[in-house]
Amino acid sequence: AAPRLRLSGLCFLLQILNILLFAVFVRYSPESGPGRCPPQLNCSRRNQDSGFQQPRFQDVHIQVLLGFGLLVAFLGRYGPGSVAISILIIAFAIQWAILIQGFFYFFLNGKIYVGAQSMVSADFCTAAVLISTGAVLGRVNPVQMLLLALLEVLLCTLNEYILLSLMGVSDSGRSLTVHTFGAYFGMMVSRILHQPHTDKRKGEEQQDTGHQLDVFAVVGTIYLWIFWPSFISATTVHNNAENWAVLNTCFSLVASAVATFILCPVLYEESTPRMVQVQDATLAGMAVMGMAGEMLVTPFGALIAGFLAGLLCPLGFRFFTPVLHARMKILDTCGVHNVHGLPGILGALLGTLLTLLATADAYGDRLELVFPLVAQGSRTVTDQAFIQLSALPLTLLLATLGGCLTGAVLKTKGLRSPPDTRNPENTVLWEVKLGNC
Amino acid sequence: AAPRLRLSGLCFLLQILNILLFAVFVRYSPESGPGRCPPQLNCSRRNQDSGFQQPRFQDVHIQVLLGFGLLVAFLGRYGPGSVAISILIIAFAIQWAILIQGFFYFFLNGKIYVGAQSMVSADFCTAAVLISTGAVLGRVNPVQMLLLALLEVLLCTLNEYILLSLMGVSDSGRSLTVHTFGAYFGMMVSRILHQPHTDKRKGEEQQDTGHQLDVFAVVGTIYLWIFWPSFISATTVHNNAENWAVLNTCFSLVASAVATFILCPVLYEESTPRMVQVQDATLAGMAVMGMAGEMLVTPFGALIAGFLAGLLCPLGFRFFTPVLHARMKILDTCGVHNVHGLPGILGALLGTLLTLLATADAYGDRLELVFPLVAQGSRTVTDQAFIQLSALPLTLLLATLGGCLTGAVLKTKGLRSPPDTRNPENTVLWEVKLGNC
Amino acid sequence: AAPRLRLSGLCFLLQILNILLFAVFVRYSPESGPGRCPPQLNCSRRNQDSGFQQPRFQDVHIQVLLGFGLLVAFLGRYGPGSVAISILIIAFAIQWAILIQGFFYFFLNGKIYVGAQSMVSADFCTAAVLISTGAVLGRVNPVQMLLLALLEVLLCTLNEYILLSLMGVSDSGRSLTVHTFGAYFGMMVSRILHQPHTDKRKGEEQQDTGHQLDVFAVVGTIYLWIFWPSFISATTVHNNAENWAVLNTCFSLVASAVATFILCPVLYEESTPRMVQVQDATLAGMAVMGMAGEMLVTPFGALIAGFLAGLLCPLGFRFFTPVLHARMKILDTCGVHNVHGLPGILGALLGTLLTLLATADAYGDRLELVFPLVAQGSRTVTDQAFIQLSALPLTLLLATLGGCLTGAVLKTKGLRSPPDTRNPENTVLWEVKLGNC
Repeated sequence: AAPRLRLSGLCFLLQILNILLFAVFVRYSPESGPGRCPPQLNCSRRNQDSGFQQPRFQDVHIQVLLGFGLLVAFLGRYGPGSVAISILIIAFAIQWAILIQGFFYFFLNGKIYVGAQSMVSADFCTAAVLISTGAVLGRVNPVQMLLLALLEVLLCTLNEYILLSLMGVSDSGRSLTVHTFGAYFGMMVSRILHQPHTDKRKGEEQQDTGHQLDVFAVVGTIYLWIFWPSFISATTVHNNAENWAVLNTCFSLVASAVATFILCPVLYEESTPRMVQVQDATLAGMAVMGMAGEMLVTPFGALIAGFLAGLLCPLGFRFFTPVLHARMKILDTCGVHNVHGLPGILGALLGTLLTLLATADAYGDRLELVFPLVAQGSRTVTDQAFIQLSALPLTLLLATLGGCLTGAVLKTKGLRSPPDTRNPENTVLWEVKLGNC
Repeated sequence: AAPRLRLSGLCFLLQILNILLFAVFVRYSPESGPGRCPPQLNCSRRNQDSGFQQPRFQDVHIQVLLGFGLLVAFLGRYGPGSVAISILIIAFAIQWAILIQGFFYFFLNGKIYVGAQSMVSADFCTAAVLISTGAVLGRVNPVQMLLLALLEVLLCTLNEYILLSLMGVSDSGRSLTVHTFGAYFGMMVSRILHQPHTDKRKGEEQQDTGHQLDVFAVVGTIYLWIFWPSFISATTVHNNAENWAVLNTCFSLVASAVATFILCPVLYEESTPRMVQVQDATLAGMAVMGMAGEMLVTPFGALIAGFLAGLLCPLGFRFFTPVLHARMKILDTCGVHNVHGLPGILGALLGTLLTLLATADAYGDRLELVFPLVAQGSRTVTDQAFIQLSALPLTLLLATLGGCLTGAVLKTKGLRSPPDTRNPENTVLWEVKLGNC
Repeated sequence: AAPRLRLSGLCFLLQILNILLFAVFVRYSPESGPGRCPPQLNCSRRNQDSGFQQPRFQDVHIQVLLGFGLLVAFLGRYGPGSVAISILIIAFAIQWAILIQGFFYFFLNGKIYVGAQSMVSADFCTAAVLISTGAVLGRVNPVQMLLLALLEVLLCTLNEYILLSLMGVSDSGRSLTVHTFGAYFGMMVSRILHQPHTDKRKGEEQQDTGHQLDVFAVVGTIYLWIFWPSFISATTVHNNAENWAVLNTCFSLVASAVATFILCPVLYEESTPRMVQVQDATLAGMAVMGMAGEMLVTPFGALIAGFLAGLLCPLGFRFFTPVLHARMKILDTCGVHNVHGLPGILGALLGTLLTLLATADAYGDRLELVFPLVAQGSRTVTDQAFIQLSALPLTLLLATLGGCLTGAVLKTKGLRSPPDTRNPENTVLWEVKLGNC
């Protein structure tokens, strides 16, 4: 069959598979509110505590994040040519993540009970997949991308389950499980798929990208400023901590945006940063607030953290990306390491520090919501901080191993694109996409 | 007067008329919450039951739908050239629909009491008008469009009143009253306005549309994913059914998006679908969930329905639209038949099936909200299903008759554009708009 | 140092200053809900009455307005080239406004207690700054813009404090304190920065602006229709008045959009208005509802007010702007006088009229929320109306004086851009921006 029919056929198979699995396993939550976790279900602790039965959650947030889907965030870097494939990835990954996460979290009597909460978790998982695709964009075909999504959803959910449910790590904004995992997973896939000749050429092409995508970067940045804080607050506890998460994220955003204006003129010859750089800083400012967002960062702490993330991001692009490419043969097409990886690690360290400083006095009722095990007395603050810290190397390990595995699968001969002489516009599509990054 | 002053004058007359009618008839609801339907008013049953007094409804939804106004959905097909006129149509139709619907639903002691609920109903009516304009775009001038809006609001409200209030049909997401009605109304207007020579030429031009509008299609698709589920949930009952409506719509969306990727490579030579096609499938996936959304579709049912709608839409474009044009002389400029008409009919059939399957056990409290007459015992489930089904031919009949009538009015000599040799850029405007579709 | 490093250095200094001031003064509200105004704090009356502790407020609105930040509104006129600087201005002004407003409103025991409410106030202040930059765009460099923001936040907060807290003016949608103040402040800065030769040339260039920015105007208009009503309702009282504010704003929007279609064909040779003109009318329709929005405007009153604002705006562009430029040497680059200044004044007059007509019967419980001093009996309606009216000349006076002062500061030699022969792309940037307006 023609290569374009391979994608079509794979989509068909996967969609039929999804429908069958949904028909066998997935039901709406038996109790009134979908999204509420019935007590007899083995939900993760966070879900039980936060009690997602509130109406405002259900009508405001799901739609926002579902639709948003990080998609816009990537338009500025990936360009419109890649949007159709991104939507395919999102549409598949959401269904698949609901299934896989259902087996881990919401499985009871042979059925998965889904609701609004499942949708939010699936969105987070999809976000990790989108981050990973950012690292390999331009060197994988759509069929490989779908397989990458298939495998990454599995591994990302496994990592999330170990961290959140087994270890009791507090990572509501997903600094580790989404940002860091997605970035390092994608980079390892990129490493395995390394092809000496073409990559070298593409690495050079990357330099002379035009300003034509600024419109997308503008729209993406505005979307992020509008929707990300509520994306964050959707998973944080509902009573008071939510407000902290929103406010902390806003302060972090603001400071990271200013940081770009400080560093970019120093690093590059331009007097003002390009919109893509502002957007990257915005994303970095969000990633850094993932874990710490609902903790007592305090306004100036959030400003400092965002400021550091906003400095780290352009520094990474200037000094780290070329080194990664030259020494470690990792061609990070869209710089996800600087935008998601490094700020995610910074966020995890910040979260550890804040956990150490947490006291019952400062947190009040909030302690029960942010660190339930500490509040119940089954863990000291130091233990919790140690566990938060140890989650970082574990995530890096799982992401690296998973990325290697996935890269090996994607490298199998049958999946690689044929030279595609019969269908040249396909190649052009991907070349253009790379140029846009 | 110059033709451009005709539009100006008509706008002036209509706006003065609206202000006068508002001054005479329209008041804010006397009771505390606008949007709440005071008991003494002869509201439709749904409004009373759902009790729109909840704050979250009022601050979240109105603005969203009002602003959204389906406008974005159409940008991908119509292009920026038509946006100004679309906004004029929206601005006029909302005022006019509030008046007309007020006379049908909220009229008491010679006054119309409006609130947030009136705004939502007016938005739905405006959506039907926008769908109809999609069928005739490029062949009517702005003056004709305004008159089309004037007449369609009347007929659409009449149809809605018969279905929802008199017959007690459950159609919260408006599969029938908006999508199907709007599509067939517009197609009949298009049929009546048929001009053998120019239409033939335009039908051919339609083939070679460029990719230049993908940016709008991207933005439109994202808007739809974000805002449509809350648009749907704005009119569904507030307690629990809302969540089902949102989740069902999300699942339907996801499956219809994947379906495009399966079928488009088979039907066309392109390896990935264009964004406009993805957006059309998205719209079709929404239209199919209109009536059934708040019923017990179950997750896999929603996946299947969305999948079928996503397959139906490109099939219609490929095989149905040329037949309609050649045999029935209906030139459906933007393919509203495939995007709204067929999926709307499919949605109505699905809703009928689900009504037949409804049981008090499965619905619980929800039965009172979705099928109030069944819950009160004044109707059996079979009766309700029969009524849901019979609403389909009734809507088709009213849409067809109304479209013929409106088309006949628009065809009167005074309204047709003069050859416009003095003002060529006007013609160009409309030619360009067609090319964009 | 190169000029591009001056901006970088200034950003660095200001950001460090902000972080230090935040570290010393700013804390999250001690009581549960940030955004709630603890009783012992000397909050403004409005904040206490409305009690911003409601969850829906906190999760819906902040993010919306913060991200929105009027930015989109300006894209249509300013063009993408100016977006990066706009984001810098927003990011700085929000932090600065939180500090300054904190000293005025939320200062207690040497600490500023911030919450969601602070964010909203800071957003309003940032909006005034953005409006002012619209008047001088193209003739100030980024360093001057930052200083303008620095000074205007101070003066705008002072004006707001005098009006809202000391005089007890009811101006929830900020017709006076944001729209009128921002417009006249910017115009005075523009007057002081007047440079006979270059301005004349630029005034002529302004005429032949292309249609290339219609995409931004489309997106901006849609954003405004979606988000502005909730921006307005964020500061209005929560119980019932909010609904009136939202509905009034919607009606005003709709009528002002139609007004553009009536007047533009008469004033210009085009048959339909350009999207930028529709967007200007939309903004004017919002500005006029600022003060009166939560009062009993009634639906037809809102239609009339919006209609007048929509007529005033193009008339101002056609007849007022050239006179201002020729006689008073005020080059209002983006026409903020027509879009914000005149409609703001109209809104203040409308608010005065409605205050005169306010009766306890018509307002009910709402009287306590809209006019607390009247409801408590410490003021008659006539007194309140007189105070509302006297706030207008006071705002004009403060804006004019503040603008002169700021203009004088910006004119100091060190700040003016050097001829910039070494760095021509900087000049080009600003030229392009002007051409876009």
